[in-house]
Amino acid sequence: MNDLGSQPLNGKPAARVLVAGASGFTGALAAQIVWRHPRLQLAAVTSRSDAGTRLDSLYPRYRVPLQLTELDLDRVEGIDAAIVAYPHGAAAPTVAALRAQGILVVDLSADFRLREMDTYERWYGEHGAPELFGTGVYGLTEMYRDELREAKLVATPGCYPTASVLALAPLAEKGLIADVVVNAMQGTSGYGRSSDDLVHFSAMTENAFPYKTEGHRHRPEIEQELAALGSAAPVTFVPHLLSLDQGELASCFAQTTEPIGKDAVQALYRERYAGEPFVKVLDGPPNLRAVRDTNECHVYVTVAEHGRVLAFAAIDNIWKGASSQGVQNLNVMLGLDETEGLL
Amino acid sequence: MNDLGSQPLNGKPAARVLVAGASGFTGALAAQIVWRHPRLQLAAVTSRSDAGTRLDSLYPRYRVPLQLTELDLDRVEGIDAAIVAYPHGAAAPTVAALRAQGILVVDLSADFRLREMDTYERWYGEHGAPELFGTGVYGLTEMYRDELREAKLVATPGCYPTASVLALAPLAEKGLIADVVVNAMQGTSGYGRSSDDLVHFSAMTENAFPYKTEGHRHRPEIEQELAALGSAAPVTFVPHLLSLDQGELASCFAQTTEPIGKDAVQALYRERYAGEPFVKVLDGPPNLRAVRDTNECHVYVTVAEHGRVLAFAAIDNIWKGASSQGVQNLNVMLGLDETEGLL
Amino acid sequence: MNDLGSQPLNGKPAARVLVAGASGFTGALAAQIVWRHPRLQLAAVTSRSDAGTRLDSLYPRYRVPLQLTELDLDRVEGIDAAIVAYPHGAAAPTVAALRAQGILVVDLSADFRLREMDTYERWYGEHGAPELFGTGVYGLTEMYRDELREAKLVATPGCYPTASVLALAPLAEKGLIADVVVNAMQGTSGYGRSSDDLVHFSAMTENAFPYKTEGHRHRPEIEQELAALGSAAPVTFVPHLLSLDQGELASCFAQTTEPIGKDAVQALYRERYAGEPFVKVLDGPPNLRAVRDTNECHVYVTVAEHGRVLAFAAIDNIWKGASSQGVQNLNVMLGLDETEGLL
Amino acid sequence: MNDLGSQPLNGKPAARVLVAGASGFTGALAAQIVWRHPRLQLAAVTSRSDAGTRLDSLYPRYRVPLQLTELDLDRVEGIDAAIVAYPHGAAAPTVAALRAQGILVVDLSADFRLREMDTYERWYGEHGAPELFGTGVYGLTEMYRDELREAKLVATPGCYPTASVLALAPLAEKGLIADVVVNAMQGTSGYGRSSDDLVHFSAMTENAFPYKTEGHRHRPEIEQELAALGSAAPVTFVPHLLSLDQGELASCFAQTTEPIGKDAVQALYRERYAGEPFVKVLDGPPNLRAVRDTNECHVYVTVAEHGRVLAFAAIDNIWKGASSQGVQNLNVMLGLDETEGLL
Repeated sequence: MNDLGSQPLNGKPAARVLVAGASGFTGALAAQIVWRHPRLQLAAVTSRSDAGTRLDSLYPRYRVPLQLTELDLDRVEGIDAAIVAYPHGAAAPTVAALRAQGILVVDLSADFRLREMDTYERWYGEHGAPELFGTGVYGLTEMYRDELREAKLVATPGCYPTASVLALAPLAEKGLIADVVVNAMQGTSGYGRSSDDLVHFSAMTENAFPYKTEGHRHRPEIEQELAALGSAAPVTFVPHLLSLDQGELASCFAQTTEPIGKDAVQALYRERYAGEPFVKVLDGPPNLRAVRDTNECHVYVTVAEHGRVLAFAAIDNIWKGASSQGVQNLNVMLGLDETEGLL
Repeated sequence: MNDLGSQPLNGKPAARVLVAGASGFTGALAAQIVWRHPRLQLAAVTSRSDAGTRLDSLYPRYRVPLQLTELDLDRVEGIDAAIVAYPHGAAAPTVAALRAQGILVVDLSADFRLREMDTYERWYGEHGAPELFGTGVYGLTEMYRDELREAKLVATPGCYPTASVLALAPLAEKGLIADVVVNAMQGTSGYGRSSDDLVHFSAMTENAFPYKTEGHRHRPEIEQELAALGSAAPVTFVPHLLSLDQGELASCFAQTTEPIGKDAVQALYRERYAGEPFVKVLDGPPNLRAVRDTNECHVYVTVAEHGRVLAFAAIDNIWKGASSQGVQNLNVMLGLDETEGLL
Repeated sequence: MNDLGSQPLNGKPAARVLVAGASGFTGALAAQIVWRHPRLQLAAVTSRSDAGTRLDSLYPRYRVPLQLTELDLDRVEGIDAAIVAYPHGAAAPTVAALRAQGILVVDLSADFRLREMDTYERWYGEHGAPELFGTGVYGLTEMYRDELREAKLVATPGCYPTASVLALAPLAEKGLIADVVVNAMQGTSGYGRSSDDLVHFSAMTENAFPYKTEGHRHRPEIEQELAALGSAAPVTFVPHLLSLDQGELASCFAQTTEPIGKDAVQALYRERYAGEPFVKVLDGPPNLRAVRDTNECHVYVTVAEHGRVLAFAAIDNIWKGASSQGVQNLNVMLGLDETEGLL
Repeated sequence: MNDLGSQPLNGKPAARVLVAGASGFTGALAAQIVWRHPRLQLAAVTSRSDAGTRLDSLYPRYRVPLQLTELDLDRVEGIDAAIVAYPHGAAAPTVAALRAQGILVVDLSADFRLREMDTYERWYGEHGAPELFGTGVYGLTEMYRDELREAKLVATPGCYPTASVLALAPLAEKGLIADVVVNAMQGTSGYGRSSDDLVHFSAMTENAFPYKTEGHRHRPEIEQELAALGSAAPVTFVPHLLSLDQGELASCFAQTTEPIGKDAVQALYRERYAGEPFVKVLDGPPNLRAVRDTNECHVYVTVAEHGRVLAFAAIDNIWKGASSQGVQNLNVMLGLDETEGLL
C-alpha cells in the first residue's frame, strides 16, 4: 500500500484505517471522522468510480486531503482495520478478502446484518461470501457492546433499524411488544449519492412521500433485532423521504402485551439508557436538527389515548445511522474509549 | 358595507362574498380563490390586525388588490356569503352574527365541527355560540354533498381530518376498520402566520419533528367522522411538522375487522372515488408536490406484510385542508358546479 | 401524426401545437401551459429519452395526460405551431425541418438568439442550420411585439437575458448605460433535468455559489440586446445557483452616461412599463415567491449612495424565463390576446 | 457571580469567560464555542429575555447545559473576559461597565467598529459610551493581528464587512481598487432570532430578495476598512436574503486603478493569504456548504471579460461573520494559539 497520507497523531495511533468506498456519502463521512479521530490514522481512501480525485475536492465540506485510489487487495499491508462502504451485495467479497488478511472489518452494508440466509436472499439476492455469513457481530453498539469487544467483523445496522430498535429496545427487552407500526422518515442523504430525477433539488424541495410501501428490506432486520431482544412481534414498517439532507426519525406505535402507564414506560427508558453516552432520553419529542452531525440518538416515549406506546427516535442517518456508528464500533473493537473522536 | 372592490364578472355573480380574517394564511388564500372565481365576487376582506393594508401588499404571491378593513357587523348588507377564517373559539360569535342576518357561512375554524359539546369543551374551551352548536354541516364535501346543498352553516374540516378521513373512508363505510394509527405530517403553513422561534426559517430548515404527542384535538374529530361513516374504531394520531410550506400527508395503518387483500382493497377505493372530481386514487404512493396549490387529494392504498391496510392521502393543507375546500363547499351550497374556480 | 390527445375547447382552436422535447423541465411546462390554454390545442408531446411514458407520470405536478412519443418529422401534418425545447445546438435542425413544412416555431434554445455567427460559434459551437441563422425574431415580447406579429420563427430569450434586459431596458433605450454589472441568481430548475452531484438535494440544500465565473454565454446575449435598445455598454455578468427550485433575480448595478436621480429613474421605469400586462414596477425590492408560477416580471429601480443605478428584476426562470414567455410569443404570433392562457 | 457551571479543563483555564446576550443566535453560538474550547471556561451565560431557561433547552442543537441568568454587573468578579452579543446601540454601556472592571471585552455589535462618530450616529443613532468610542481594535483578525495582541476591547466586524474585506483586501492593500460593487447574500440566521413574517419558514422557503436597497449600514464599514488598507474607493453594496440558515457570500466586482491579469491577481491572493490558518484561496468559486459551521473564509479571484476583477468570499455568517471570529480574536488577545477551539 502506498503511503497515501498521514495526520499528526498524539504518539502512536491505535490503528491504521482504510476506508473502502470513500466516494459515496457514508464512506466519505467515515473517512472524515477517522481523519479527525485522535487515535486513528486514515491510511487510505479508495473508490472505483472516483479514483484519482482528492476527497476534499469531491466533498469540500469535509476536510480530507487524500487522493482516492483504487483498492488493491494485494497491497494492504500495514492496514489494521477497514471500514467498507460498498453497496449491499458488493461488500461481501471485499470483506472476505480483507478478513483473510487479518484486517478488522466494519462493514456498513447489509451483507452481514441478517441471521437467516433465506431472508438475505429474498431481499438482497445471492450472497457474495456465504462462508462468512452469520459470523459478524451486529453493530448496534448499545445492544451488543460485549460481543463487539471481541469482534473481527462487524455489520453496522441499517439506518432505519438503528433508530427503530433504539426507540423500542427497552420495551422489547421486557417482552412487552405485541405489535408495532414504525413510521420512519429520512432525508436525501439516505438515498445515496446516485443522482436521479427523484433527488434532484427541483423535485425534492417542498416535497415528502412514502416509498417502498410494498416492502422494505429494513423491516425483517427490525423484526430480527426486536426478537433477539425479547419481543418476536410483527412489524409494520413504512419509510418516507423528506426535503432535508441528513436526519432520520422513527415514530413507533406499539401495542403492548400488557398495559403500561406513561410514568412507568418513561422510567423504564430512563433507566435502560442511563449509562449510554450517545442515547439521550428526552422529556418531549425529539427533533432532527438537534442530532445533526452527531452520533447521538434522541429518544422520547409516552402513551397515547387508547393505550398504545409512542416511541420516537431521532438520529442523523449517515452518522449514527451509518458512519459514526461504524467508528463507535471500531472504538469498542480496539479497546478505545467508545466516545473517542465522536464528541 | 363600503364598496371595497369588484372584479370583472361574466354577467351577474352567483354571490357576493366576504372573507373575514383575511390576513391569516387560510383567509388570505380563501380571498385569492374567491377573487379568481368566475362566479363569485369578492366583496370585502377584513382583518383586525392588518386593517388598512392592501392584501396584495401583505401577500404579494396572491393578487388581491383590496384593502383589509375591520369587520363591521352592522354593515354587511349586500353580502350573500361569508368565509370565516378566525382562530378556533373566536369564530363562533361572528358566525352567529352573520347567520342572524341570513348570510351563508363557511367556517374554517373548529367551532362547528364536533358533534359533542363535551368533546368541544375538552379541546377548545367554552363555546362562543352554543345555540348554534350542532347546526352546521360537516364540510368534507365528498362525504356530505347532499346535506351541503341545503346547508346554511358549514364547518370545514380540519386539515388532518380531511386527509385522514379521505384516506380511510372507503374502509370505514364498510365497517372494516378495527383500529387505526394515523401518522400525519404537514408543512409550516399549517402552523399559521403567528411567528415564533419554532417556525423561524433558521429553526425549521433541515428539521422535522413530532408534536402534540400527548394529544391533538384533531384526533377526536377523526374518530367522530370514521364512526359516522361506519367504523367506530380507536384512532391513534401523531402529527409531525416538516421543513416545507404547503403540503400534508396522512399515512394510515389500519387493522381490519376481517382480512382484505390488496386487489380487493384497491378495487374498493377505485370504485368509491370513481366519480369524485378532486380525489384521485393512484397506483403508487402519493407525493406532496403533486397536490400543491390544488384542491386535490391523492390516495393510495395497499396491504402490508402482516395484513395491515396502508392508506395514504396527500393534500395541500391550506387548499383542500382549508380554503379551497371551503370554496368547494360554497359552490355546492350555491348550486354551482362543484369544481368552479378550483381547476 | 397520431391523434395523441385532445382537450375540451371553446369552439375551434386557434392552433394545434406540438411541444418537442417535452420531457425536460421547460418542455414539460410548455406542454402544461398549452394544455390549459383556452385557445390552443396540445396536439402532441415528444421526447427521445422518455417516449412511451405519459407526461403526467413523469411530472405528476403537471396535469398533461398525453403519452410522449418520438418526434417523426414525416408525420406532422395538422400541426400549426411547435414549441421546441431542445438543448442548445440540437434544436436548429429540427427547427429547420418544422419551418420547411410551414409550421410556426417558438424555439426555447439559444440557436437563433444571437445576431453574430462568430459569437454563436464561440459559445455554442457549430450551428445546426446556418441558412436560418439570423432569420428569427428575438422573443422578448415587451421589446419586439411588432416584429413578433409577423414572425414565423421566434427565439425565446435566455432566462438571464430576460430578467437582465427587462431590468435595464428603460435605461438602455435612452442610451443611459455606460457600464453595468449584472449579478444574477437562479434556482435549480435552471440547471435542467440532467441530474448530477451538483443538484442532488443533499448537495444543494443550504447552499449557494457563483458559477461560470470565467464566462457565461448569456453575457454576449445581454450585451447584444442592450446595444440593440440603445446602449452599447460593457456587461460584467456572474450567475449564482440558489437552494430553491423556480425563480431568478437579476441585480444590476449600472453606471450611467449622465447622472440621474431616484425620482427621475423611477418615473422613467413606470412610464416605460405602464401598459405592459406582465411587467410590474414595484415600490420596493422584488422577491421570487411573488412571481413563482407566473409569467410576470417584477422590477424595482433606485439609485445607490455613489450614484449607480440599481435595477432589480425577478422572474420565474422556467415561466417568463422560458416556457410561458414562449406561449406569450405564440399568442402574439397567432393574433390572440397576449395574456391568453397566462393569467 | 453565582457559580453557574464549569467544564472539565486540562489544568488551569486561560480565562473564565462570560457570554452576555447568549439567547440570541450569535450569543448562543459564542457560548457553544467557548464551552467546547479546551483552554477557556464558560463561566456564565446571560440573557434578559430568557433568564431562567437552560441554554441547551433553548438551542437543542448546541450542548451548553448552563442556565441563562440576568447579567448583574455588580457580581462579575472572577470573570476574565466577556463576549457581548447585544443589539447595536445596546452594547456600549455594558461594554463600558465591563471594561471599567478590567474585563477584556470582545463586542459582537457595531458599537465600536466605526472610526467616525458622525458615521456611527447617522446609521445607529446616539452612542451609548462615547468616551470609549474609537478605543477598540477592529477585530478582523487577518488584518489587525498585531494590534489585537494588546487589545482590551475588540469590535468584531459585521458579517458583510468580514466577507467583503477578506475578498478585497489583497487588492486594497496595493491601492488597486478604483471602484467596487459588492453584491452580498446571506441566510436567515443573519436576520437574527426576532421572528416576524419575513423569516417565517412559509415566507422564506423557495424565496430570495434584495433588501436595504436604499442603504445598509455595513457599506460605510466596508469603505472605512478598504480605505484603511489602502484603497479609498466608493463601494456600492446591496445585500440579499436567501432561503438557507447559515452562510454568506460576497460577490465583488472591482474596477482597478491599473489593469491586472488573472494570473497576477491570483498570485497576489495566494501570496497574501499563504500563512493564514482560516483563509483558503480556492482554484474556483467557493460555496456556502463548505464553510458552514467553520471559522473559515473561502476566497476566489479572477478577471472578467471587460477587465473587472471578480472576487468572491464565502463564510458562515454567524461563525466567521460573528461568534467564532470573536473567539479567534479572544485567542489572540489571550496569547493562545489562534486556532484553539476553532478547528
